[in-house]
Amino acid sequence: MREEIEGIARKAREASYILAKASSEIKNKALRLMADNLEKNREEILRENRKDVERAAEKGLTGALVDRLILNEKRISGMVKSIREVIDLPDPVGEIIGMLRRPNGLLVGKMRVPIGVIGIIYESRPNVTSDAAVLCLKSGNAVILRGGSESYHSNQAIVKYLRKGLKEAGLTPEAIQLIPFLEREAVKYMLKLNNYIDLIIPRGGEGLIRAVAEESLIPVIKHYKGICHVYVDEYADLEMAIEISYNAKVQRPGVCNAMETLLVHEKIAPEFLPPMIEKFKEAEVEMRGCEKVRELVKGIKEAREEDWFTEYLDLILSIKIVKNIEEAIHHINFYGSHHSDAIVTNHYAMSRKFLEEVDSAAVYVNASTRFTDGGEFGMGAEIGISTDKLHARGPMGIEELTCYKFIIFGSGQVRV
Amino acid sequence: MREEIEGIARKAREASYILAKASSEIKNKALRLMADNLEKNREEILRENRKDVERAAEKGLTGALVDRLILNEKRISGMVKSIREVIDLPDPVGEIIGMLRRPNGLLVGKMRVPIGVIGIIYESRPNVTSDAAVLCLKSGNAVILRGGSESYHSNQAIVKYLRKGLKEAGLTPEAIQLIPFLEREAVKYMLKLNNYIDLIIPRGGEGLIRAVAEESLIPVIKHYKGICHVYVDEYADLEMAIEISYNAKVQRPGVCNAMETLLVHEKIAPEFLPPMIEKFKEAEVEMRGCEKVRELVKGIKEAREEDWFTEYLDLILSIKIVKNIEEAIHHINFYGSHHSDAIVTNHYAMSRKFLEEVDSAAVYVNASTRFTDGGEFGMGAEIGISTDKLHARGPMGIEELTCYKFIIFGSGQVRV
Repeated sequence: MREEIEGIARKAREASYILAKASSEIKNKALRLMADNLEKNREEILRENRKDVERAAEKGLTGALVDRLILNEKRISGMVKSIREVIDLPDPVGEIIGMLRRPNGLLVGKMRVPIGVIGIIYESRPNVTSDAAVLCLKSGNAVILRGGSESYHSNQAIVKYLRKGLKEAGLTPEAIQLIPFLEREAVKYMLKLNNYIDLIIPRGGEGLIRAVAEESLIPVIKHYKGICHVYVDEYADLEMAIEISYNAKVQRPGVCNAMETLLVHEKIAPEFLPPMIEKFKEAEVEMRGCEKVRELVKGIKEAREEDWFTEYLDLILSIKIVKNIEEAIHHINFYGSHHSDAIVTNHYAMSRKFLEEVDSAAVYVNASTRFTDGGEFGMGAEIGISTDKLHARGPMGIEELTCYKFIIFGSGQVRV
Repeated sequence: MREEIEGIARKAREASYILAKASSEIKNKALRLMADNLEKNREEILRENRKDVERAAEKGLTGALVDRLILNEKRISGMVKSIREVIDLPDPVGEIIGMLRRPNGLLVGKMRVPIGVIGIIYESRPNVTSDAAVLCLKSGNAVILRGGSESYHSNQAIVKYLRKGLKEAGLTPEAIQLIPFLEREAVKYMLKLNNYIDLIIPRGGEGLIRAVAEESLIPVIKHYKGICHVYVDEYADLEMAIEISYNAKVQRPGVCNAMETLLVHEKIAPEFLPPMIEKFKEAEVEMRGCEKVRELVKGIKEAREEDWFTEYLDLILSIKIVKNIEEAIHHINFYGSHHSDAIVTNHYAMSRKFLEEVDSAAVYVNASTRFTDGGEFGMGAEIGISTDKLHARGPMGIEELTCYKFIIFGSGQVRV
């Protein structure tokens, strides 16, 4: 198995040289053919997917996990639509950034280039297979996919038709590789191939990400959990605060940019919390409050220390009353996951303080945390949301799948 | 020892929050005081340095190593001058990049912020202590320095006066930490503290860098060796080709951006190589050639396979005649270290092909590879030259010691 995986990585590395030189035209042609192939062969893909779903049911997997695994007509159409959107994105490769003339006449600038070979390690959702491969292709990178064992047949079928598209366009199908081994060792071997793979992006639960980061000899961009906060400041517009807090928690609670903890300034709490809690109750949100919250509104469960550290991904919310903005910021930086956090305020200085001092990938004034997303930020599709600080932070689009090299135009300059 | 190192890292982390908020004014004030302190206390620093030099001599260290270790009046003045130059650089922290209005009215942009805590692991040169600390301070980062054991006393003395400057300016001295343990285990412990340290930059020999990259749980930006090439194309201006090749090899052979291998197109070789080799002989350059070179010019030593992989850092040069630009590019990408490579040509299409296809941090047309340097590229002082592809490639200045966060200004927007 070790040798096969090394062989796969070597093929990807070779393909990456071809992809790095490929024009936008030929990459877009391949993407069009890939979309067409998924569309034309949806029956076969659905058939393969059913094998995975049946096996999952046999294994006694629970509802949410099986739901993420299931493909249907609508989800395949979604994958196809995503590919067509990526075609419309501008090609980041080859862009020249910040070229300046130096005093000695040298022209020095940066040229955007692909990273090379990107490894994606992910869990059950089969649409990640297509989304990730397509974003890597557009940005000129070869990709090595290692999906979850539960979606084995689905991933095989999807990759088959993506590779067919590459071939039909005259590009090498080796630019998209799928690790066919289900054993955990396969990932370990993959993470040691720093001669062939330039970047690893793990997507999934905290356990997966932590294990990958510890094992890897290859640079990793982590996509950890989102413990997101909304802080309702003393100077908040009450109605706006209710709208934003409600949206951040309820609109889609199962995603990483949903709010997990609501922080409320003590001066606005008596006015704000009763109607807010009423509204959350109507949406069947389970609430867990600090002592002060429970004094103010009766019948709220107690929030324990571990609640402040918890990503519920569900209709559960912890609520805390704070003395001032300093306490709110300290709470966010200490208990949060540096993902997405918002303040609701009409006070200029408070908004600036929050923006400056909250150490998160996305910091909001007067808007819902739910906007943290490549599409919403105007970057096009995203390969994930980085909670790391190096190379890429927050939503990662195709530009974040590139690096640069310095290019220098001279006319015979030598160093003296 | 493990606990002490963790304590040091925790102090640096706490200091990093203070530094992230510090104004340019106060950071520059600290830098001025740091420069003054080094200047005023040069006698003490030189005295401490002599202890290191004596110990090195006792241990039988060789000339070049001891030379890198020695401080004198001129070298201290150099450190002081570097600090004053950093004061004049614009503060990168707080810059807002690419803020755009989205269709829903949200303003989305990136704000440049410090990375946090940066660990620098380096070998003998004591001036790195000051240079690295100063660049980290200017970019709002706390720094943990781990210098070589040979420069123990020098580093202690330098850090003492840098910290004094921080204190006098009203900033916390804890922002500059020096690991006082000489054991190798100290580095190992440091590399596991991913809760406190955000980035490791190793500077030194290949062995050091490889060991750090393998041990570290913290992201590492590597600064590997420079196996740099000059390719003299069929369409080169002969005189320019000689000037550039000579400069790239001879002007300062001991540095990473000096040329190690000269590649020559077979059509221009008979005209170019004899005068070129003559000029190198006058500069006492030892040359090692491929078979074709040795047929063309008698008395050249044979280049072996390992020569193409070797960073001589000395007046030694390997020379190879190639059939065409494809062979040159393949040689550079295969044997090189992806650092700095140049083509000399007057052919438009050849220049473009070389720029596109050579996979190096800096790719030159008609200029010496010796220009790969933060100062020469207009970035100000540099903390090193990254041979990695993530986050920073090529010279790393203070901007590369920052990351960004998304900041979003709303007026009550919620996601639908």
